[in-house]
Amino acid sequence: MPQVVFTYFNCKALGESARLLLSYGGQEFEDKRFAQETWPAIKPTTPFGQAPMLEIDGKKYAQSMAIARYLGRKYGLGGATLEEDLEIDMNADFINDIRAKAATVQYEADEALKKKKHEDFTQNVYPALLNKLNEIIGQNKGFIALGKLTWADFVFAGMYDYLKFMMQTPDLDEKYPNFKKVVDHVYSLPQLKAYLAAAPKCEV
Amino acid sequence: MPQVVFTYFNCKALGESARLLLSYGGQEFEDKRFAQETWPAIKPTTPFGQAPMLEIDGKKYAQSMAIARYLGRKYGLGGATLEEDLEIDMNADFINDIRAKAATVQYEADEALKKKKHEDFTQNVYPALLNKLNEIIGQNKGFIALGKLTWADFVFAGMYDYLKFMMQTPDLDEKYPNFKKVVDHVYSLPQLKAYLAAAPKCEV
Ligand SMILES: N[C@@H](CCC(=O)N[C@@H](CS)C(=O)NCC(=O)O)C(=O)O
Ligand SMILES: N[C@@H](CCC(=O)N[C@@H](CS)C(=O)NCC(=O)O)C(=O)O
Repeated sequence: MPQVVFTYFNCKALGESARLLLSYGGQEFEDKRFAQETWPAIKPTTPFGQAPMLEIDGKKYAQSMAIARYLGRKYGLGGATLEEDLEIDMNADFINDIRAKAATVQYEADEALKKKKHEDFTQNVYPALLNKLNEIIGQNKGFIALGKLTWADFVFAGMYDYLKFMMQTPDLDEKYPNFKKVVDHVYSLPQLKAYLAAAPKCEV
Repeated sequence: MPQVVFTYFNCKALGESARLLLSYGGQEFEDKRFAQETWPAIKPTTPFGQAPMLEIDGKKYAQSMAIARYLGRKYGLGGATLEEDLEIDMNADFINDIRAKAATVQYEADEALKKKKHEDFTQNVYPALLNKLNEIIGQNKGFIALGKLTWADFVFAGMYDYLKFMMQTPDLDEKYPNFKKVVDHVYSLPQLKAYLAAAPKCEV
């Protein structure tokens, strides 16, 4: 088995998908979680100056979506054809677009502006995107793509609390009932039981 | 040969990679370019309410990166292993992160804020990212990944003018000399000659 180290902040956000996928694949890995204070020392050792980072036998990889796709394909959670992979990829990218929109609000330093943006997006941006995503999951029987479990479900499940937090919408479960189905599908996988029992609890 | 229609605004930006890849693959396609005024009618017919859209025998796909990856793998421009695909994907995502940063400036509606953000990013954000990208291309012999032509080169080459425009940096060629190498590698491919001669000229 290769030596695997996964490095990320002590939160789920963009890192949890890889931790879940590694666990699903039965891959032992060092779950290296660092505190904000140590990030400046770690940053220059990453491929792009960003976390998360995945190391396999010393070789370093970055980018959460690329890592999730890699692990997913490795563990049988990709498509059977190029067209199926495209469907997974496009739906995963749509989720990532939603996350990126919410992040522009969350990481706005100017508090007044942040509030204004949040109100604007809550009114004019999020509903159409979230309705569309809810509809897609409905068409896919409670999964993100292909009507069955793929690595994109791990991406969504892993960042779901982070999404809620950034969108300031604790009622996402009730408003878009299909979201919780994806999360439940992933978090109830028996392969994840040991990891989930042992992992530090993180709010986002 | 499948019936292929590619739908996007009449610009390069997020759409050109697919046009270039289809041309590279020798795939005949309808290059459907719409004017801003007709977008509201097209929007609801797309998978996520966004352009670009690729239709193959009537089936609709979206998301520029997912489409480029699909076409690239189809035409022999992907990796030979999962690890090689991961390297292409992560470098392509890094480029996309840079584009997304520049887009938050470009699409800021408040002019004063836009100016402030542009100055901030030009000072504090772009240099590290662009230096890193220039370095990566240097290590890859003038390509984005794997030291040879992959679909990620088409992504970068297709959006290069758009990047320059959004970053308001016409001197990118001089400051980061490896960028132009990627662009030249792609635009000098003989497979693209006919497309490039016939395509409408677009500034971005
Ligand atoms: N597109 C990248 C984004 C990575 C990213 O933004 N990482 C953040 C943490 S969630 C980070 O490293 N921030 C610290 C920094 O940029 O110095 C991915 O999906 O991995
Ligand atoms: N992540 C998507 C982003 C697509 C996107 O932002 N498309 C823009 C044009 S470049 C669009 O459709 N804008 C019109 C709209 O959203 O109504 C991709 O890469 O395809």
